[in-house]
Amino acid sequence: MIWNEEIECMSREDIEELQLKKLQNILKYAYDNVDYYHNKYDSMNIYPEDIQTLKDIEKLPFTTKDELREYYPFGMFAVDPKKIIEVHSSSGTTGKPVVSGYTQKDIESWSEIIARGLSMMGVTDEDIIQNTHGYGLFTGGFGIHYGAHKVGATVIPISTGQSRRQIEIMEDFGTTVMIFTPSYGLYLAELAIEEGFDFKNSSIKSIGFGAEMWTNEMRKEIEKRFNAPAYNIYGLTELMGPGVGIECSTQEGLHISEDYFYPEIIDPETLKTQGENTKGELVLTNLEREGMPIIRFRTKDISSITKETCQCGRTTSRMTRITGRSDDMLKVKGVAIFPSQIEKALLKVNNIEPHYQIIVTRPHLMDEIEVKVEASKELFFDEIKEMMNVKKKIEEYIESEIGLRVKVTLVEPKSIPRSKGKAVRVIDTRDIH
Amino acid sequence: MIWNEEIECMSREDIEELQLKKLQNILKYAYDNVDYYHNKYDSMNIYPEDIQTLKDIEKLPFTTKDELREYYPFGMFAVDPKKIIEVHSSSGTTGKPVVSGYTQKDIESWSEIIARGLSMMGVTDEDIIQNTHGYGLFTGGFGIHYGAHKVGATVIPISTGQSRRQIEIMEDFGTTVMIFTPSYGLYLAELAIEEGFDFKNSSIKSIGFGAEMWTNEMRKEIEKRFNAPAYNIYGLTELMGPGVGIECSTQEGLHISEDYFYPEIIDPETLKTQGENTKGELVLTNLEREGMPIIRFRTKDISSITKETCQCGRTTSRMTRITGRSDDMLKVKGVAIFPSQIEKALLKVNNIEPHYQIIVTRPHLMDEIEVKVEASKELFFDEIKEMMNVKKKIEEYIESEIGLRVKVTLVEPKSIPRSKGKAVRVIDTRDIH
Ligand SMILES: [Zn+2]
Ligand SMILES: [Zn+2]
Repeated sequence: MIWNEEIECMSREDIEELQLKKLQNILKYAYDNVDYYHNKYDSMNIYPEDIQTLKDIEKLPFTTKDELREYYPFGMFAVDPKKIIEVHSSSGTTGKPVVSGYTQKDIESWSEIIARGLSMMGVTDEDIIQNTHGYGLFTGGFGIHYGAHKVGATVIPISTGQSRRQIEIMEDFGTTVMIFTPSYGLYLAELAIEEGFDFKNSSIKSIGFGAEMWTNEMRKEIEKRFNAPAYNIYGLTELMGPGVGIECSTQEGLHISEDYFYPEIIDPETLKTQGENTKGELVLTNLEREGMPIIRFRTKDISSITKETCQCGRTTSRMTRITGRSDDMLKVKGVAIFPSQIEKALLKVNNIEPHYQIIVTRPHLMDEIEVKVEASKELFFDEIKEMMNVKKKIEEYIESEIGLRVKVTLVEPKSIPRSKGKAVRVIDTRDIH
Repeated sequence: MIWNEEIECMSREDIEELQLKKLQNILKYAYDNVDYYHNKYDSMNIYPEDIQTLKDIEKLPFTTKDELREYYPFGMFAVDPKKIIEVHSSSGTTGKPVVSGYTQKDIESWSEIIARGLSMMGVTDEDIIQNTHGYGLFTGGFGIHYGAHKVGATVIPISTGQSRRQIEIMEDFGTTVMIFTPSYGLYLAELAIEEGFDFKNSSIKSIGFGAEMWTNEMRKEIEKRFNAPAYNIYGLTELMGPGVGIECSTQEGLHISEDYFYPEIIDPETLKTQGENTKGELVLTNLEREGMPIIRFRTKDISSITKETCQCGRTTSRMTRITGRSDDMLKVKGVAIFPSQIEKALLKVNNIEPHYQIIVTRPHLMDEIEVKVEASKELFFDEIKEMMNVKKKIEEYIESEIGLRVKVTLVEPKSIPRSKGKAVRVIDTRDIH
């Protein structure tokens, strides 16, 4: 079922017209009501009136997480605190947390967005949703909660933890929809099997997962174990919470509620806006938000966007799943590369250890990239011919992953330094990068 | 401010007329839609039509927690599961948990009830409520959350835990209203002082506390530390959640939302309904509830009720704070006695140890009660005269607490057996009790 056919199936022309109108409104609103925008736009001599086409948005400066932190706690609010009815916040594990404020209207918007997504996942008022996302300052739990209310489904707000009870409730309450992070879902599945839960005959028919990076392999594993399709839900506290993008039954990208969010993809180095189907950093703008309108927020999440009409009939833009963080991105010979891609290629090859290093240099004004990989003990003492075979295989897998031929060097087992904290995967000796 | 003056200040006559009408409706509704009531009433040959006055409610059987457990999970629901939008549950630490189901209308009722209570506490749309009650299956967090939305205040749904962060947020967000359990509040206060939080100049102006037993001493301690008045919030999952009764600024009993709940006080032994201002077990009936109407629920909580108009202007019945559980009640010479009362009296006396035992016997067809108390080492080796003085003092304090003269025996230090689990405070050797 399509929750809001009028919006979700609007022609691209109409949706872009609507977006432009909303963009112009919110820019004026933000400029008039938030010092941050007022001062920044003034200092750059750019004004809401200068935005006459959607493309004009590129004239506007970005908003970064660090800037939001500077305005902690309520400096980005556009309304009298009296109008704010709910506050959420990021965890603030590094530095000051980012605070997000919602008016009554914003909570209604959030409910609408999630209601659309739950409908994509096949959820109706007959469903029983077991919401294992944490409630609290984290936005995960509440977004789904409000959306479930809107759809009229039954929500079990169990939150994370009490894992054995989760399984008891899946069984006793006849849960039809599970919401979890991929890692918690996999943990629950394991525990459930241990407890003798019968997934084959369970009432679970749909899964929503998010709030963590994931791979297609993880999704397949979740779907296999729960015996139900699993749909990705994307969002972030700064912009609203979960619901910015949600997958439909085709599982080919996350539909963005484009009357609420204007998505762009930029090259995180040049900051230039990219065309359709090109990977880069996702930038998001709230097109409708009273409490805390955010303009051109750099999510640091790597994705790409297509505007092609989906097989499900919806015309809204779709984003691919997040495949990395722009902080991790390497640009080599003009190509964006993520360590995760190298890792993925290496996982397909036998006889090597899961330790590698990416070394980027620029010896003759030209980028060079080398990947050092530890051979297994067996391979290392094997014939040289076998080592050459493995090396070639790795080069091929990496090329098919990143579209670039790199030099692979097999090194002695345990020769790549181990670090206690985050492994140093990348050594980039170029002056500029 | 009085949130709903029409209801909260209605004349007793009108409110009782309204209650009767609502009672008759919900009885018919429960009988028609819930097998439990239908079968039970049929078997007792009592029917909704037999209830022609409020007093007629006494003809109806009680509903107990054990019965609700038998109908786990959804057997007490009065509507098609489609209409249920949220489910909560008790912890189920002993036996099967009790499940509570809410329709959209029930959530609205809950919001209204809490909005009235928050208004009693002086909360308006200008306030910032830090809700440290747990969200999840527990009803504590959500009740306050919905009520805060209704009032238009800002709710910070931080939930329990992250205690240092709680204090940071009290400071940074300018929290004006704290919601906590008394024990968590006292813990937070201690930690806050450790962290240098300045309660004297803090923005906190009102506190709502509940979900635990408490004493007046605890309240005073909380008020002193937080430098703000603290109001009790009472409720239970079976009936709805927090909000059944909430204290107004006079702090003289908890106002019951009598258009939603019909309260009775019964003698937990004879099960007879008690008059005003008589202590006994609180029995509650939902007067308006779609999802799961509960009729004459034995709360096991000990309270008493007054219908006198409150100094705040509200006319709704008020219940006293819960002073015990009917399971702990002793009936001696026709008087209800709680171990907590004895304990309270003992706390006022010096030179004794906090170890005691209540011994009830019936040697000559008449109840006798003796309280054994350990003397301190010093007292035990003191003159007999001093011991007699202390003994007399304890007897007086106990009499003023329970209204009955009991025999007190001072015993040697460490002579009362220590138990590892719950202390055996009462030894009752009567045949019937
Ligand atoms: Zn689609
Ligand atoms: Zn009052």
